[in-house]
Amino acid sequence: MPDTPSDAQSRGTDHAAKMAKKAAARDKIMATKTEEKGLIIVHTGKGKGKSSAAFTMIFRCIAHGMGCAVVQFIKGGMDTGERRLIEDRFGDLCQFHTMGEGFTWITQDKARDMAMAEAGWETAKRLIRDPAVRMVLLDEINVALRYGYLDLDAVLAFLAHDKPADTHVVLTGRNAADALIDAADLVTEMTLVKHPFRAGVKAQPGVEY
Amino acid sequence: MPDTPSDAQSRGTDHAAKMAKKAAARDKIMATKTEEKGLIIVHTGKGKGKSSAAFTMIFRCIAHGMGCAVVQFIKGGMDTGERRLIEDRFGDLCQFHTMGEGFTWITQDKARDMAMAEAGWETAKRLIRDPAVRMVLLDEINVALRYGYLDLDAVLAFLAHDKPADTHVVLTGRNAADALIDAADLVTEMTLVKHPFRAGVKAQPGVEY
Repeated sequence: MPDTPSDAQSRGTDHAAKMAKKAAARDKIMATKTEEKGLIIVHTGKGKGKSSAAFTMIFRCIAHGMGCAVVQFIKGGMDTGERRLIEDRFGDLCQFHTMGEGFTWITQDKARDMAMAEAGWETAKRLIRDPAVRMVLLDEINVALRYGYLDLDAVLAFLAHDKPADTHVVLTGRNAADALIDAADLVTEMTLVKHPFRAGVKAQPGVEY
Repeated sequence: MPDTPSDAQSRGTDHAAKMAKKAAARDKIMATKTEEKGLIIVHTGKGKGKSSAAFTMIFRCIAHGMGCAVVQFIKGGMDTGERRLIEDRFGDLCQFHTMGEGFTWITQDKARDMAMAEAGWETAKRLIRDPAVRMVLLDEINVALRYGYLDLDAVLAFLAHDKPADTHVVLTGRNAADALIDAADLVTEMTLVKHPFRAGVKAQPGVEY
């Protein structure tokens, strides 16, 4: 049976009232969020999107004219679209350092991997301390920590004591250490629900790189 | 006790052997991934990063010179960094359409929200059919579907029958419908582990917008 005008009007009024209530509740909550601070942000989990979500934060910094930087600990060997775009178009705002030699299992040289990771961490410390840099993305650092290529306690101590108060540091990679999650302000776990590799689909430009 | 050279050498050999085995296993798996196809990709869950991870895929397309497009169903009222960057710098490769008027609970007008969502979907269909467009991001469409502003069956039927085979479509937002997850090739759930709003920290440029 078609709606009578009064039915529709009644539903419209209910909807408006419900949404007004939501808006009021939201305003009340948001009014309590007044602090600005540099965050320690962690993206972990087995799903996709850990680095991708971090790179959009880098693009947001670029859009706002905020200095930022990327240090890639593991994926350095890959020619990715985001790297090319940042280096070619926004190198003035965003420094890009790649420390790894592709995925670690390709190099088969632990001493070299460890030296690379240490060099990456030295670069990262310099960038985090730099007052012109407002966000530093430490891409795949969790993997370097997990393999023992970097010392977790040293990284946590630096973040706790040497990170400038208004600088954001984003750490990505699977298997984030519990102590890092404890130290972080914002932690998201990317969970794999369904992946096309299982159906024989290869990595494709735009989607994976 | 310090390592003797032979200890270190032995561990180095073990590591190289382990990594060589991993590399061989990975190569074997990757060799089976030969298909290229346009994917239906869903980012859902209560955590952050759903839209952010999708936007890096858009930036990857831009980097590869692939035409792409964004239709925002809900966040249209926000001036975000990623939107400004794409519109100002990459408008030739990426069309950007905002259909909503900010979050729905601000408008309090269901009829208007529904009309907006329908207009967004008409634009989305045109873009998905366009052979020059290789990826279409339907940002926050899950929210429009959840509120009943769009017809789920119509959206699924279009994706199944009218999407060109090599076009990627990315659908974001909380509460993705089960039928959409069934239809998708790649699904990631972003899970909230820890959020700084709880500690009174407000949304900040670079991080949230």
